[in-house]
Order: sequence, then structure tokens, then C-alpha cells
Amino acid sequence: MNFKLTLQYDGTDFHGWQMQGEERTVQGELTRVLARLEGRAVVVHGSGRTDAGVHAEGQVASVRLEREITPEKLRAAINGNLTRDVRVIKAEAIEDDFHARYSARGKTYVYRIFNEQFVSPFWQRYALAETRPLDLALMQEAARLFVGEHDWTAFSAAQSETESRVRRVTEVEVTSRWDERGQGSLIEIRASAEGFLRYMVRSIAGCLLAVGRGEIDRDAVEREIRTGERSHLYATAPAHGLTLLRVQYD
Amino acid sequence: MNFKLTLQYDGTDFHGWQMQGEERTVQGELTRVLARLEGRAVVVHGSGRTDAGVHAEGQVASVRLEREITPEKLRAAINGNLTRDVRVIKAEAIEDDFHARYSARGKTYVYRIFNEQFVSPFWQRYALAETRPLDLALMQEAARLFVGEHDWTAFSAAQSETESRVRRVTEVEVTSRWDERGQGSLIEIRASAEGFLRYMVRSIAGCLLAVGRGEIDRDAVEREIRTGERSHLYATAPAHGLTLLRVQYD
Repeated sequence: MNFKLTLQYDGTDFHGWQMQGEERTVQGELTRVLARLEGRAVVVHGSGRTDAGVHAEGQVASVRLEREITPEKLRAAINGNLTRDVRVIKAEAIEDDFHARYSARGKTYVYRIFNEQFVSPFWQRYALAETRPLDLALMQEAARLFVGEHDWTAFSAAQSETESRVRRVTEVEVTSRWDERGQGSLIEIRASAEGFLRYMVRSIAGCLLAVGRGEIDRDAVEREIRTGERSHLYATAPAHGLTLLRVQYD
Repeated sequence: MNFKLTLQYDGTDFHGWQMQGEERTVQGELTRVLARLEGRAVVVHGSGRTDAGVHAEGQVASVRLEREITPEKLRAAINGNLTRDVRVIKAEAIEDDFHARYSARGKTYVYRIFNEQFVSPFWQRYALAETRPLDLALMQEAARLFVGEHDWTAFSAAQSETESRVRRVTEVEVTSRWDERGQGSLIEIRASAEGFLRYMVRSIAGCLLAVGRGEIDRDAVEREIRTGERSHLYATAPAHGLTLLRVQYD
């Protein structure tokens, strides 16, 4: 039977999603637990990689099991064998042709910035600390430039995929709110696309941070998106501020 | 000069607020940092103790320093020498007679319960995991019984204070909301009083949890509050679900 698993993880102590050697990864932990349950090797497919330090509120994985088990029992069996920084929040029996990666239609990420002179202990793992004031209106204006279909070479890892770097971005929104828990201003950059290239959301976040600080203007951003040539006027934002929110399927 | 410090901490890795021997405590860390800054021993007063594992979004401390320093620089100097799980979020110069404990007029705590079949990694440190369904209406009805002036012997540590156990509770409210981040139902028990006895909020939370599960009814709760005799029908709720929200001053 084919199962769809929806997962949350605190990425702080993981070397990302993808299995690699002896490193502790989310895919590695899930594979280990499921192989023990199934009594043989299994392949766990994720909707895509998340890098070391990146979190997930709604990552999706799929796995085919021969063992007869209800989704509820499967969830309990997996969670009972995982450390507390990763959890299956939902397990569903799903059509045989469902594949977490190939069936995905879109993804939404959020990049969080705690914009105060201090970092709340409740956000230090999950948001970038930025003590400089940020101009929200400028960030919001520049964010709109990212919506549309473009070649995102300027906003991806230099060594990344050889296939097309054209992706359709459907939403980039910047909001700011008072966070009661952290007692500070929390800025969220929310980005949705049919697919993202490696480091793409963190590059967009880094760019919008530079815009917010007044280091680059919207014309420079527009030029960069149009030409696909990276200006190196800003840094890719660090991993720990990034969270995969949702993966969309038909 | 006398300073008022507002603090946040993730209590997970602290043995509570109060200094004790070699244990890592919040008061101990602050005292160490401030003594180094001042170049002599200092006394840091807290609004009150929090137990091991209890968090704070708005604990208050006061300290008298001879060194001339602006509140902004004091905050930066302290934060620069603390681990990331504790932060001074605000420092203020304040009247000489201000004392974090003796000047306090009231406190507000929240006890959080993540009420799902799984615990979100984003709440595991800060909320009690409860997989059984809870009857919110019953909890809300019982919560009202706690408002008022009573002897709270039944709801405090057996070995606690010898002075009066009479306290005036001004608010106990139970709310439930969908938590988008954890993708689950988060129940919050909010309690305010002029002062609380040791374990009092956790006892109230434990009692309301038992009410929510249908283990005890409102008559039993009312009797317990009235007689001050603990029925032992429920357990004190664990520390990690508790957070000190605010301390009120005139």
C-alpha cells in the first residue's frame, strides 16, 4: 500500500532532508524507522530536499509498504520511534501512482526575520535576527517583482541543476506583525512557486533584506531578475530562518 | 542606579530561576554576567521563582549598579554574555525603591496543552502533550470557580510557605485555537493573581485537565477550593507546559 506522510521537523539538529552517509538527516531517520517496521529496505520519497538547518511545518513524503497497517497505526508506530524534533502529523493511504516529488504541484515557504535589538529565545532557532530597521514598504514593493515566470539563475546555487532554471513563482508576500510570544516585530516573507531551485527562497529573502536596509533599490532587483546575472550586492539569507510550510497536490 | 530588566527564557535547560549551588539557573547566569560587568558582587532580584523547566515570556528582575551605563548599553552588554536561551528584552532605569519582587502587584501565567495524537516539534518544549479529547466547555466552567480569594492549600506544594496561603485570583480562562504552526489544537489556561503559591498554577492546570477528561466534576473542584483539602484525584501538571507571561507593577 502507498502512504502519504505529512511531516514537521525542527531542522536545527538535522543535516537537511536528504540521506547522506552517516549524517543525521530526516529522510535517513524515516527510512531507518520504516525499514525496521517493514522488515526490509524501503525507499522514502520526499517532496524535495530541505537544506541543513531548514525547518518544515508541512513537508510531504511517500512510501510503499507491503505490511498491512492502518494510517493511524502507521503514524503512531513511526512517531514512537523518532526523536521529538521530527513528527508525522498525518498519514494517509493514497493511490498507487502518488509520488511525493513527482505529484507535487507547488510549494510554499516562509522566511522569518525577528527585527529587534534582541532575539527572543522562542525565535532564535526559527528566525533570522536582524537588529537594523527594515523598510517594509520597500520590501513589499520589491517582493512583487518576483512573481512570474523567469529564469532564476541569479537566485540559485551556482552549482545547481543543469536542467532549466525557469520556474513560475506565484506569490511573494512580505508581512510584519507584533509577535506576542517573542515580544517583538516578526517579518515573514512568504513565497509560493510550482517549484524552487536550490537556495532560491533564501536568495530572494537575502535580496529583500538588502532592499529593506536600503542597500539596493527596486531597479537593481528588476535588472537581476531580467538578466539572470547575480550582482553579489547581497548574501543568501541563512538557513535557520527558512521553513517549508506546505506542499500542494492535485 | 536601579534597573528593571524584562526577561525571556526557554526554561528547558535551566534548573529554574533561583540560584542554587552549581546548578545552571537564570538568576545564577544573570548574577554572573552582571558581577563581571560591575566588577564586584551584585544581587539580582526576581519577581519570584520559576521552577525547573518553566519558561518566561516576561519575567522581571531588578538590580542596583554603581557603574554608569545607559539602559540600552546594559541590555546589549548582558545579552552579549548570555547563552541564547535567555535574553533581556528590555532594560529601564527605574526609581530607587523599585524591587522586582516587593513592588509586584500581580502575575499572569499561561499553561499550554497541545491536544492532538502527535506533538508538534515546535511545541514539544513548551506545551503538555495530551492525546485524549478534552471537553473545553467543562474546563471553562470549572475555571471560573478559581476566581476569588481563597486559601489555596489544596493547590500548592505540601511543604510550601508557612505564611498565609490566601491569595486573590483575578482570572482563570481556558481558550482553544487552531495553531497554524504546529498544525493542531492548542489549549491555553491563562491565570492571573496578585500572587501564586508554589505549584499553584500547575495544580490548577492539572485539575482542569482532569475536568476536561471527565475524571472529576465541578462539584469536586468547588469542594476542594472551599475545604482546602486536596482530593488527590489529579496530578500537578508538568513544568514544561507553564510559561510566566507578565508581571504587573503600579
